[in-house]
Amino acid sequence: MLTIDLLIEARWIIPIEPPGITLEHHAVAIDAGRIVSLLPTEHAQAQFQPRHTVTLSNHVLLPGFINLHSHAAMTLLRGYYADDIKLMDWLNQPICPGEDRHVSPAFVRDGTLLACAEMLRGGITCFNDMYYYPEAAADAALRLGMRASLGILATEFPSAYAADADDYLSKGLSARDTLRDEPLISFCMAPHSPCTVADKTFERIATLSAQLDLPIHIHLHETRKEIEESIRQHGIRPLERLRRLGLLGPSLIAVHAIHLEPSEIVLLAEEGCHVAHCPTSNLQLTSGIAPVHDLAQRGVRLGLGSDGVAGNNRLDLFREMNLASLLAKLSSHDATTLGAHAVLRMATLNGAAALGQDKRCGSLVAGKQADICAVSFEDFSLAPCFSPAYHLVHVVGREHVSHVWVDGNACVIENKLQTIETSELLAIVNLWHNRLGS
Amino acid sequence: MLTIDLLIEARWIIPIEPPGITLEHHAVAIDAGRIVSLLPTEHAQAQFQPRHTVTLSNHVLLPGFINLHSHAAMTLLRGYYADDIKLMDWLNQPICPGEDRHVSPAFVRDGTLLACAEMLRGGITCFNDMYYYPEAAADAALRLGMRASLGILATEFPSAYAADADDYLSKGLSARDTLRDEPLISFCMAPHSPCTVADKTFERIATLSAQLDLPIHIHLHETRKEIEESIRQHGIRPLERLRRLGLLGPSLIAVHAIHLEPSEIVLLAEEGCHVAHCPTSNLQLTSGIAPVHDLAQRGVRLGLGSDGVAGNNRLDLFREMNLASLLAKLSSHDATTLGAHAVLRMATLNGAAALGQDKRCGSLVAGKQADICAVSFEDFSLAPCFSPAYHLVHVVGREHVSHVWVDGNACVIENKLQTIETSELLAIVNLWHNRLGS
Repeated sequence: MLTIDLLIEARWIIPIEPPGITLEHHAVAIDAGRIVSLLPTEHAQAQFQPRHTVTLSNHVLLPGFINLHSHAAMTLLRGYYADDIKLMDWLNQPICPGEDRHVSPAFVRDGTLLACAEMLRGGITCFNDMYYYPEAAADAALRLGMRASLGILATEFPSAYAADADDYLSKGLSARDTLRDEPLISFCMAPHSPCTVADKTFERIATLSAQLDLPIHIHLHETRKEIEESIRQHGIRPLERLRRLGLLGPSLIAVHAIHLEPSEIVLLAEEGCHVAHCPTSNLQLTSGIAPVHDLAQRGVRLGLGSDGVAGNNRLDLFREMNLASLLAKLSSHDATTLGAHAVLRMATLNGAAALGQDKRCGSLVAGKQADICAVSFEDFSLAPCFSPAYHLVHVVGREHVSHVWVDGNACVIENKLQTIETSELLAIVNLWHNRLGS
Repeated sequence: MLTIDLLIEARWIIPIEPPGITLEHHAVAIDAGRIVSLLPTEHAQAQFQPRHTVTLSNHVLLPGFINLHSHAAMTLLRGYYADDIKLMDWLNQPICPGEDRHVSPAFVRDGTLLACAEMLRGGITCFNDMYYYPEAAADAALRLGMRASLGILATEFPSAYAADADDYLSKGLSARDTLRDEPLISFCMAPHSPCTVADKTFERIATLSAQLDLPIHIHLHETRKEIEESIRQHGIRPLERLRRLGLLGPSLIAVHAIHLEPSEIVLLAEEGCHVAHCPTSNLQLTSGIAPVHDLAQRGVRLGLGSDGVAGNNRLDLFREMNLASLLAKLSSHDATTLGAHAVLRMATLNGAAALGQDKRCGSLVAGKQADICAVSFEDFSLAPCFSPAYHLVHVVGREHVSHVWVDGNACVIENKLQTIETSELLAIVNLWHNRLGS
């Protein structure tokens, strides 16, 4: 008998790899934060001596979700813009009206803490963020025990955080140095968008991405106006501009990717680019419906993102999975498009791959870190259940998430956060609410 | 001091009438199942001697939601069709493949019980149903204490329930007679759809609707194929056919109403017809996006419906409100379209008006029955909150519903059903799950 830290026995497991399967009465054996084995529960009981066993008799286990696009700190502004937001109004600046007056390390730490608490309890174990003061965001993620990919932000627009593009980049690179020994923290180059970043900055980012082996996280082809502006200023569409500047390739994470010509979809596929699909934000900001079905058919790997609270009001990948599936069915005129297993893969392994983290997380496979989400199927609103995978995409809400582990540590038990008291969180948010409301 | 049954004191109240307002620190005084008064809490405390007081210090009170289109009993088939459903495949029959083998009074009673439990706990106090065996559906609704509008179904297709259109009508009318003394139960004429009902049956329905003062609940202009079939068989589009047959008017509840010419939108408005908008179902069955913004601008009154589990997997008006708002913003290219108060009105008062029940429910106004929903804003995932109305549409999930009253009776307290044990419900569903799974 091999002694291990933790054995999780579950009614169903959807490991994501191999694709499309749902195992019954299996268990995940975990030691030192890693998955040791995934096997039938009765074999596991014969083979392992766990220090701790969690039996989830009416639950699905699956990899923790990966939120491939967020501006976490903005969560302090949830509902602040209400029905009055228009993306075009601040397309040429990376910051929303109202937001600019408050951004500081404390705002970022507190806002990211609120966001992480919400994401983690909803089964999200890793998020890919783009915002100011990444050290402050790291503080929050590490406090809650969550995995984070933080942006080395770049824009030509000065802010309280940095004076110009070079200053943004040097501050981001310095944050990366400071945090290099944190296994939960990784970084992306994060040029804000084609409208807000100059050619020479993009060239530097391409070089840095190659030298440091970092993904490039950028808003791309989100609105028609972005494309028109690019044609006016540069004579070409943003994607072609990025191609000429050497940014396309498997490192690129194109966020939104809504307005695409067929040739651009082929280009994204040929270059091995990733897309962060943000369906709620795309509707709320009236940007459009991304051609997810066409992208997937051409072989572009798609992950899912919540975006920040200017474009969404929940950081909820269950909602995004559901909406992604519904919109893909509608756009393709085929109710069988984007089946449940494909959506679950988008929300997990595809996100990990985009972040270059798929050797570390994104599926329940021996050798990977134990980033795991358990969903309880006990409530009558989920009954009956003929297919757990289908239910996860179309029936379950994040309130049914019961347990979450990151690196084998229990961050959520019985839908309750283990790493922060709710009262502390609410006190922090109230403070900002009073400041922002006035 | 006037003695009353119940005083509910709330942090916020959105009464729906007058439109667009959110009251703070107000209370609803209730006696004998009716709203006596809505007034500032401190005045209420001075004026009333309640037998029972409920203090909801961080909650919003609003009218119970009205689900304007359901096939409640089908909830026993939740997820049964998974990603494989295509509406076209059974457009010409009113019943889904698989469903026909099981329909019986027991199926309808048990399925409607599951549906009512889900709806009620999610803040829905009334539903407008179209299905077989309405007495069995009434049994379930009354058991849980819920308001229901049941269909006097008509189709030309025989089923276990009835042999032909006349048989359907006489069985439905007889159910209405049996249930005439139940104040929670009302009826609609429910011709299934233009494809499944003959002209002479429609003529009889028009007469019965006028004689008995009953709304007419019908699937209408849901798919392009429905319209093509009508042109092929009758030489005209379904709406024009119904107009000629005398079915248009304030009694008509057109469900889906997706594929509409501009002149048809004008016609619906001029005739005072109602539309039951079912956004999730419209996407899932790839039917299309209804022109909600145009309908609303022309003055057509829209309510919201979940549809049955072939087109949706949750009976959740919070989801429908959110999706209705997002799709309207996208289609109108304007992020300010269909603001929160307008959506809340759709989900409450407009539903009541469509059912001819707006003197009885749909808003928190003295003299109406006390059909009320309370939503708790205590959870950190709803913080901060700058506008309770906006939060209800874009942030809140049905899991935040804390209390529900129908006719002044507490059906849900602290998100727990008061009128049935969860264990009984699950036992009933399991029985059917085993039968259906085999």
